[in-house]
Amino acid sequence: MPENKAVIYEGPGKVEVESTEYPSFELKEGPGVNPLNVGRKTPHGVILKVAATNICGSDQHMVRGRTTAPQGLALGHEITGEVVEVGRDVEFIKEGDLVSVPFNIACGRCRNCKEGKTGVCLNVNPDRPGSAYGYVDMGGWTGGQADYVLVPYADWNLLKFPDKERALDKILDLTMLSDIFPTGFHGCVSAGVGPGSTVYIAGAGPVGLSAATSAFLLGAAVVIVGDLNQDRLAQARSFGCETVDVSQADPKDQIEQILGVPEVDCAVDAVGFEARGHGREAQTERPATVLNTVMDVTRAGGAVGIPGLYVTGDPGAADEAAREGSLSLRIGLGWAKSLSFATGQCPVMRYHRQLMMAILHDRVQIAKNVNATVLPLEDAPRGYADFDKGAARKFVLDPHGIVRAHMPQPRQPA
Amino acid sequence: MPENKAVIYEGPGKVEVESTEYPSFELKEGPGVNPLNVGRKTPHGVILKVAATNICGSDQHMVRGRTTAPQGLALGHEITGEVVEVGRDVEFIKEGDLVSVPFNIACGRCRNCKEGKTGVCLNVNPDRPGSAYGYVDMGGWTGGQADYVLVPYADWNLLKFPDKERALDKILDLTMLSDIFPTGFHGCVSAGVGPGSTVYIAGAGPVGLSAATSAFLLGAAVVIVGDLNQDRLAQARSFGCETVDVSQADPKDQIEQILGVPEVDCAVDAVGFEARGHGREAQTERPATVLNTVMDVTRAGGAVGIPGLYVTGDPGAADEAAREGSLSLRIGLGWAKSLSFATGQCPVMRYHRQLMMAILHDRVQIAKNVNATVLPLEDAPRGYADFDKGAARKFVLDPHGIVRAHMPQPRQPA
Amino acid sequence: MPENKAVIYEGPGKVEVESTEYPSFELKEGPGVNPLNVGRKTPHGVILKVAATNICGSDQHMVRGRTTAPQGLALGHEITGEVVEVGRDVEFIKEGDLVSVPFNIACGRCRNCKEGKTGVCLNVNPDRPGSAYGYVDMGGWTGGQADYVLVPYADWNLLKFPDKERALDKILDLTMLSDIFPTGFHGCVSAGVGPGSTVYIAGAGPVGLSAATSAFLLGAAVVIVGDLNQDRLAQARSFGCETVDVSQADPKDQIEQILGVPEVDCAVDAVGFEARGHGREAQTERPATVLNTVMDVTRAGGAVGIPGLYVTGDPGAADEAAREGSLSLRIGLGWAKSLSFATGQCPVMRYHRQLMMAILHDRVQIAKNVNATVLPLEDAPRGYADFDKGAARKFVLDPHGIVRAHMPQPRQPA
Amino acid sequence: MPENKAVIYEGPGKVEVESTEYPSFELKEGPGVNPLNVGRKTPHGVILKVAATNICGSDQHMVRGRTTAPQGLALGHEITGEVVEVGRDVEFIKEGDLVSVPFNIACGRCRNCKEGKTGVCLNVNPDRPGSAYGYVDMGGWTGGQADYVLVPYADWNLLKFPDKERALDKILDLTMLSDIFPTGFHGCVSAGVGPGSTVYIAGAGPVGLSAATSAFLLGAAVVIVGDLNQDRLAQARSFGCETVDVSQADPKDQIEQILGVPEVDCAVDAVGFEARGHGREAQTERPATVLNTVMDVTRAGGAVGIPGLYVTGDPGAADEAAREGSLSLRIGLGWAKSLSFATGQCPVMRYHRQLMMAILHDRVQIAKNVNATVLPLEDAPRGYADFDKGAARKFVLDPHGIVRAHMPQPRQPA
Repeated sequence: MPENKAVIYEGPGKVEVESTEYPSFELKEGPGVNPLNVGRKTPHGVILKVAATNICGSDQHMVRGRTTAPQGLALGHEITGEVVEVGRDVEFIKEGDLVSVPFNIACGRCRNCKEGKTGVCLNVNPDRPGSAYGYVDMGGWTGGQADYVLVPYADWNLLKFPDKERALDKILDLTMLSDIFPTGFHGCVSAGVGPGSTVYIAGAGPVGLSAATSAFLLGAAVVIVGDLNQDRLAQARSFGCETVDVSQADPKDQIEQILGVPEVDCAVDAVGFEARGHGREAQTERPATVLNTVMDVTRAGGAVGIPGLYVTGDPGAADEAAREGSLSLRIGLGWAKSLSFATGQCPVMRYHRQLMMAILHDRVQIAKNVNATVLPLEDAPRGYADFDKGAARKFVLDPHGIVRAHMPQPRQPA
Repeated sequence: MPENKAVIYEGPGKVEVESTEYPSFELKEGPGVNPLNVGRKTPHGVILKVAATNICGSDQHMVRGRTTAPQGLALGHEITGEVVEVGRDVEFIKEGDLVSVPFNIACGRCRNCKEGKTGVCLNVNPDRPGSAYGYVDMGGWTGGQADYVLVPYADWNLLKFPDKERALDKILDLTMLSDIFPTGFHGCVSAGVGPGSTVYIAGAGPVGLSAATSAFLLGAAVVIVGDLNQDRLAQARSFGCETVDVSQADPKDQIEQILGVPEVDCAVDAVGFEARGHGREAQTERPATVLNTVMDVTRAGGAVGIPGLYVTGDPGAADEAAREGSLSLRIGLGWAKSLSFATGQCPVMRYHRQLMMAILHDRVQIAKNVNATVLPLEDAPRGYADFDKGAARKFVLDPHGIVRAHMPQPRQPA
Repeated sequence: MPENKAVIYEGPGKVEVESTEYPSFELKEGPGVNPLNVGRKTPHGVILKVAATNICGSDQHMVRGRTTAPQGLALGHEITGEVVEVGRDVEFIKEGDLVSVPFNIACGRCRNCKEGKTGVCLNVNPDRPGSAYGYVDMGGWTGGQADYVLVPYADWNLLKFPDKERALDKILDLTMLSDIFPTGFHGCVSAGVGPGSTVYIAGAGPVGLSAATSAFLLGAAVVIVGDLNQDRLAQARSFGCETVDVSQADPKDQIEQILGVPEVDCAVDAVGFEARGHGREAQTERPATVLNTVMDVTRAGGAVGIPGLYVTGDPGAADEAAREGSLSLRIGLGWAKSLSFATGQCPVMRYHRQLMMAILHDRVQIAKNVNATVLPLEDAPRGYADFDKGAARKFVLDPHGIVRAHMPQPRQPA
Repeated sequence: MPENKAVIYEGPGKVEVESTEYPSFELKEGPGVNPLNVGRKTPHGVILKVAATNICGSDQHMVRGRTTAPQGLALGHEITGEVVEVGRDVEFIKEGDLVSVPFNIACGRCRNCKEGKTGVCLNVNPDRPGSAYGYVDMGGWTGGQADYVLVPYADWNLLKFPDKERALDKILDLTMLSDIFPTGFHGCVSAGVGPGSTVYIAGAGPVGLSAATSAFLLGAAVVIVGDLNQDRLAQARSFGCETVDVSQADPKDQIEQILGVPEVDCAVDAVGFEARGHGREAQTERPATVLNTVMDVTRAGGAVGIPGLYVTGDPGAADEAAREGSLSLRIGLGWAKSLSFATGQCPVMRYHRQLMMAILHDRVQIAKNVNATVLPLEDAPRGYADFDKGAARKFVLDPHGIVRAHMPQPRQPA
């Protein structure tokens, strides 16, 4: 059995790469594993040799100590890999397949899965509907920032790349299919983005940049990205976005300067609950700022997509209401404008095949747009640290050197 | 020119029936008329002899003094009538037609109207998108609780009943097409109600009962209505609804007793910002209670329709945030459950023809379900007062005796 | 191992009830079994004790010799049963569960299944997308007009009734969930039927009556059913449908007499390729008659649902084009009216849970509406014969007496 | 009153530019004017100075003598112009506005218009739902290949360009908004084209190239265009399409060579009833060829958009059925694959604003892709002749030299 190393959360501000058990077809006791899931057999699963696994903004919430994630948790829910072992009940996925793993674990057999709502599968997380790898309160499925990982319900969950060699040549783009590209896309779709739309995207982190990329793919006329990080705004401009600097002021006036009107057709919140204020409050956490802003700048009759994460419990929040996930929202304004709102985890399976096609046929450059940056697995702590400082990069961990072997000119941090 | 009387708001708690000017094809200065609308010509309008005009819960917000409505405002936005005069540029509506008036005034010529979003028409209210007759901040179009009223953009706005005599026989049902029946229906549609759904409707006032009626028309399996008014709950039960008494406790447990599970597929907020708390807080205004409750009881992946009114300014609110329309919402919970939310005025035109057909072909008994109660116009003050006390009735004003002349057995308050 | 009897096709016009092998978790060689499916293992399957299994109009196509169905084929794709044995890889369905089986067999793991298109599953029929039990060219899965039957991919395919005893009391309604109720419902949904619609349904056989039932459940204002069989028309009238007798003439004039206009909002073809002509041609097979009629009577901008079966090969057709499934259609008329058309097998899973809820909560009486008539399994030949003669009945086979044991007053042919 | 010249149909194969009456706000007697429309007043209309007006493939049907178009008919339904006179009832469109005219004339006041189905407006054509300028059987509204033209219901129908000067700089692109760009787009939308789709477009004429352009705008992964005209195929390749030459053979094998599979997700018929056969039948008219081909190459569960014109009467057809618009279609195949079909005139208003935004913000180069070629109005006969010979061009008539004045480098036929 090969050696297996993984990125482990060791307490606030601290991740380490450690040796860990090689995956098996059973969910074992461990940090964060829901007791009801302990001993669960997974003959429907496969074991992947991880080809690429990315650090996600939502991992940062845990690492910053803003959640109840237990020490010892193996992190990572953005996974692409090669199948090295196939469970007994797997019929269509084969050893050797190169596959993308949706971050949401789904059984493919419950009512929600049948309705395409794989982000709220009823059968994988005893705590609540919905699950993910390596994440707090998500059932205890082991994270994939590792050499090897188990993927349950493999025939259902996995997206097989049709041509392995061709896929390896685009692995740095395809690795974004496990989470951020579909997540940004879902934000746009649920905000009603289509050909000719004007779009405001709050947040120029990897999800925001994915949303901007998605908006263009969906035919948007103008894509405006707001952030207070100058490097990230520059990254957004690098592929045709307009930008607004929310550290200067509320975005409304800047939007009017760009469009001639102070409103957009569609808005996407790609920030979530760790939002800071706008203008003079840019250094202060103001968790409702982005939601209230997107209501303000979206035209009457429009829609708002909210892929940015809001949580039911935030021990680090500034006030008691926020600690329970309650925020003061301008619902009166939203109602007067007849807005609609879509929240929640992106059901990756609804989009990943289509986005894969767009990547394989050169219709979109997601890796370039999010500034994908490859690191060996052992450098994960550095990736976490840089990302936390606001690097305008999407860090891709490359446990086996597969990504670097297939990159024409590897992009690495200087 | 015939005499014209109208229901006038004369200050908090006070409405009177007064003589007023006969409508003309021009919008004149008056209480609440936006200066930019003064002098506006309406050759596209018609003058209606009002056959039925209902008192609406949203009128109560004004009469209770919870808005900035000016003294002297002619009230009423639920209007059905006979065309007695036709503007020069009206082509398809004819004198003598019996018609239903959508409460939202729309031009039929702007982007939003073309998209079917008549609740946020861009051309009729200089203040903001969206308008209505006899309502504060809605542009100043004269209310229809009167003998006669002007309806602008008549070819676009009006629904003509195909057979006048047949329609008069059902006038008490058809009068609900101007607002509450489509509004309740829109709440259900935007909550995803369909055949087999389980539905929770917060509020057993006329909009709530209309939503419940709509849910059955849409094929719902179980319709549960929550309120703290026992008469209204009894009214809901009278046509097959299950009920929960929120003055006893939060509805979750009661829903579980009915369905076997503590959640529904779809939820509708038919209460709005004047909500009171649940359980022990049932006597206290708690404007966010209903929104937070519907998030709590809606299944993961479900949707929430919010026809209940939330406002941008509520001078009578208990705290400063609420005075500006900001409420503390459990968005973290909603997000974790991947809920979606639809807000705003119902675009009546999207639904009124279909619902008319359902009424004319005896597929639905909306008047009976909302306990329609006919009053002469001059008794409007009594209707307002009784409704404010929580009467389980929908008051229909009958300025010319047309409704009473066509009722087999008029239902009137004892 | 219990004895197993099944309804076997023994050549044109001939079905017999014969002893057959008890199901196993492997697809074995047999009449109509695609060689590529021989030996296929089904650890994901369950074995059902059949509680109810219905004779379908599409079975008749085979029995009339209008297909290439091989002698010896075990018939039956409308199945409800109790789980008596569970395959090794089945996780959520349990022994003892009472379940409804969608007639379309689906893997739950291919692109089409993930998109909810279970009627064209890619993995169960080596010949083409889509499959069914006991049907020609559908992969060779054994039919369910039997004591026992195998259902593959059980966790995905099966709908478990939440309360077994309560379900048994409604078994005669619930048995319609395996095919005709969802099929009729799908026809209505794809024709755009909703509250207030006027609907024309071509065909008053069980699927037509199911479509009519569905139209009412969806809130239709007027449901008009056309047929040339007087008993079936009477059956349609028994639950509120209007009817037109197409043996008298084309339906257009009769529709005008009913509605005042010669057109409907939505039309459903519940007849398919064995259609006969209208008026004087009512004794002659005219396979394109119904399609051309529904185009004629549907309003401009409307939609047509086509659940009625059209085939790629019809050896018994009158002309060469029809033998290959080509019909002379008035596409010019359809185009001028901007009609849209939806064809194909109903994806049962998209609807069966919702329709089950409507049945369990007494919102619909499908068994009564289609005149469900129970027969012992051994009387299947009589059922086939009566149905072929045009009996206004839906025959339900009851291999183990379960249906009869739970019927308050069994309805049986006189 | 200025002089007015127009392109007049003078019999099969013959068009001439002739002096004609200047438009007025009344529909007068003339060739092809429905008697019921004679004398109709249009105070809701505006008179346009035509800035650009294109020759359409559907004009060719008339000019080839394939319809009952009367001699003397003024042609042209693709119109962009400047408002020079405003009817009394026009409120929002102003003199001087530069506007795009949807080819479908719509009243903005009937049920179909309210539902967004402007292609089947009920009030403008006494013969049937739906109308157009300068077209046989469409009510008799005067064509716009002229110096000046009347547009009725101007507030409803017209799309005003927000910035006149900026629009003039893109007039050659914007002129495609009146018909072919939305028409091609509608074909794609109704075929379900979205990000990642593989698309087959039958026909590389201007509508086919517009559909291909639209497919890319919608994010399609691969766009394959089929035709038998080599120049048009080269034009398709010029902007990234794959092509198949249907004069060589049926497209299925060529599609397989491109995609690896012999099918696409979505197909669009941009040819219509004057289709020729494939392979050896490429010189023979085979009106059902394209419809049957798109059924053949579309994947099971897919959809087909049919913007290509099919007619109810074709006096020049080869057989009697085709003369009445009946074609022999492989409906059995379509049904087995669960295909859906959308037909009819594109409702331009549903799309033109969005596509205008995409043009103004440089997201799409429609003029270049269809090889827009400018001609003075008086050269219209040459444009018709060249187009009829299969020129891979879209001819834009420029009555007042406005287009040429704003083109950086006018593209004209060599």
